[in-house]
Amino acid sequence: MHDLSLPSKAVICEVAPRDGFQAEHDWIPTETKIDIIRKLANTGVKSMEITSFVHPKAIPQLKDAEEVVSRTQDLTDLTFRALVPNARGAQRAIDVGINKLKLMLSATDSHSLSNANATVEKAQNALEPIIDLASKHNVKVGGSISVAFGCPYEGIVPVERLATILDRYSKMGIDEVSLADTTGMANPRQVYKYLGELKEQFPAMTFSMHLHNTRGMAFASAVAALQQGVIHFDSSVAGLGGCPYAPGATGNIATEDLIHGFEEMGIETGIDLDKMITAAEDVRQMLGKTDLNSSYMLQAGPCSTLSPKPAGQEKLG
Amino acid sequence: MHDLSLPSKAVICEVAPRDGFQAEHDWIPTETKIDIIRKLANTGVKSMEITSFVHPKAIPQLKDAEEVVSRTQDLTDLTFRALVPNARGAQRAIDVGINKLKLMLSATDSHSLSNANATVEKAQNALEPIIDLASKHNVKVGGSISVAFGCPYEGIVPVERLATILDRYSKMGIDEVSLADTTGMANPRQVYKYLGELKEQFPAMTFSMHLHNTRGMAFASAVAALQQGVIHFDSSVAGLGGCPYAPGATGNIATEDLIHGFEEMGIETGIDLDKMITAAEDVRQMLGKTDLNSSYMLQAGPCSTLSPKPAGQEKLG
Repeated sequence: MHDLSLPSKAVICEVAPRDGFQAEHDWIPTETKIDIIRKLANTGVKSMEITSFVHPKAIPQLKDAEEVVSRTQDLTDLTFRALVPNARGAQRAIDVGINKLKLMLSATDSHSLSNANATVEKAQNALEPIIDLASKHNVKVGGSISVAFGCPYEGIVPVERLATILDRYSKMGIDEVSLADTTGMANPRQVYKYLGELKEQFPAMTFSMHLHNTRGMAFASAVAALQQGVIHFDSSVAGLGGCPYAPGATGNIATEDLIHGFEEMGIETGIDLDKMITAAEDVRQMLGKTDLNSSYMLQAGPCSTLSPKPAGQEKLG
Repeated sequence: MHDLSLPSKAVICEVAPRDGFQAEHDWIPTETKIDIIRKLANTGVKSMEITSFVHPKAIPQLKDAEEVVSRTQDLTDLTFRALVPNARGAQRAIDVGINKLKLMLSATDSHSLSNANATVEKAQNALEPIIDLASKHNVKVGGSISVAFGCPYEGIVPVERLATILDRYSKMGIDEVSLADTTGMANPRQVYKYLGELKEQFPAMTFSMHLHNTRGMAFASAVAALQQGVIHFDSSVAGLGGCPYAPGATGNIATEDLIHGFEEMGIETGIDLDKMITAAEDVRQMLGKTDLNSSYMLQAGPCSTLSPKPAGQEKLG
């Protein structure tokens, strides 16, 4: 019993083009967005959250959603998913050829009222038309729960609340839900407990983890999720994204850090780490964020990059 | 089986006065050092690595070791340990009243030759006189192994190498060894495996973990150590220390981050988190390192600090 029980593979969905870009105050030209998406696609990542079809006034940064999607249609190796807040957004996404929609929902009423101007129950009811629309067009739909482990207004979210939301998702025909630790409040023990209970209650549900590293626990929580057999993770290249509740704090766990950590533990991701590190460096340059400190790989490099042996020791084994 | 198997308590040794200070290029006045040590002592921490009795020319920053120790002798609630490289350093430490010595040793010959100008075997032989001296004065001695999981020159360190060194430590009468991930190369799976095997081979040995967060895996590795029943950890307030092999990268896991993460998981440390966060803020100010980004608590604050509910929601539960 000297090994952690971990799966041999993990699947990473790159979310910088949505979660990262929407946190940027300055306009990112559509050309740059597409450039970044292509660089990311070139790393071997197989799934990407490419944009969000929200109202352009709500998130002006993503008002070019249609153009971004239509000009990357040649990247057929990837599953592109897009966040949709309502049926109108869903219709826009479907019209432009998105093959997977992601629904938005908060775990708590405070966060839901603040983000969607409706209680969780009402917000979840309002998702029905999206699901109907997707079903009509044969487009896959995944659910999500924001602030799933902790809410910046209400604190720790009880697992029973997640179960209630998941039960409803399940009845809506959703079989894939992303649990988002939106403000980095989850700890590994909680993640292990919650996933254990939820997997037991919802054996047919595929869970994915969207972890923010706001308090330095994201990688540990990812390992706890792996220990529960959860293999789907979201992450953002260069750690783009930040945390709206803690200015200057880190946000999404950086994709290159997640790949590196997983590889060090012998877990395959199918993504080329070196290419992802290069992409992270490029993205930081392209967005003029060279002071970004949310990527360990960009600061220290992978474990495999050794220092040259000190002078006189070259012959040592 | 929905809970991680974790101990209820952990013991943290604050190492900033040694590991943190020695990494500072600018001279820290003795007065400031003592001030910081007193602030740290006031947090409830019960163990501190207060200095290193190395040759003043090797590490000028710690040339005031005697004065620092003698002027903090009134802090009788704490165990002060000091690093000693040789018998001369040990004598200095004992003379000034240190009640615990920590020995230095590397896991690999490359690192040992670079740091101590001797192979591991020779360096370990050279520790004998220190142990004799300590035994004569009834002073406790603990061992350490630097680059225990990965060496910046040699890469992954095999567990068999640690076993060889521990066997020798054990025969020398040492029953407490700190495994130092000096350059942040350990991953949680490796930590779990190594500790599992080493605890089996050396059941009488008390292990402690000295983790650097250079690649973002320190907290996850700490959790893996806890899962193996290891409860002793080193950490450095504000994450002081850095990494000599990766300029600008983070070094020691920050004490306040470790306490916070442990508390979130229900593991008691006996240290007041708020006081430690205040100490971290003070230390950063006192050392003029306000741009230091190696503490999640200083950037984002603890999970328990909630945001005020948005306007109109004050009445929500």
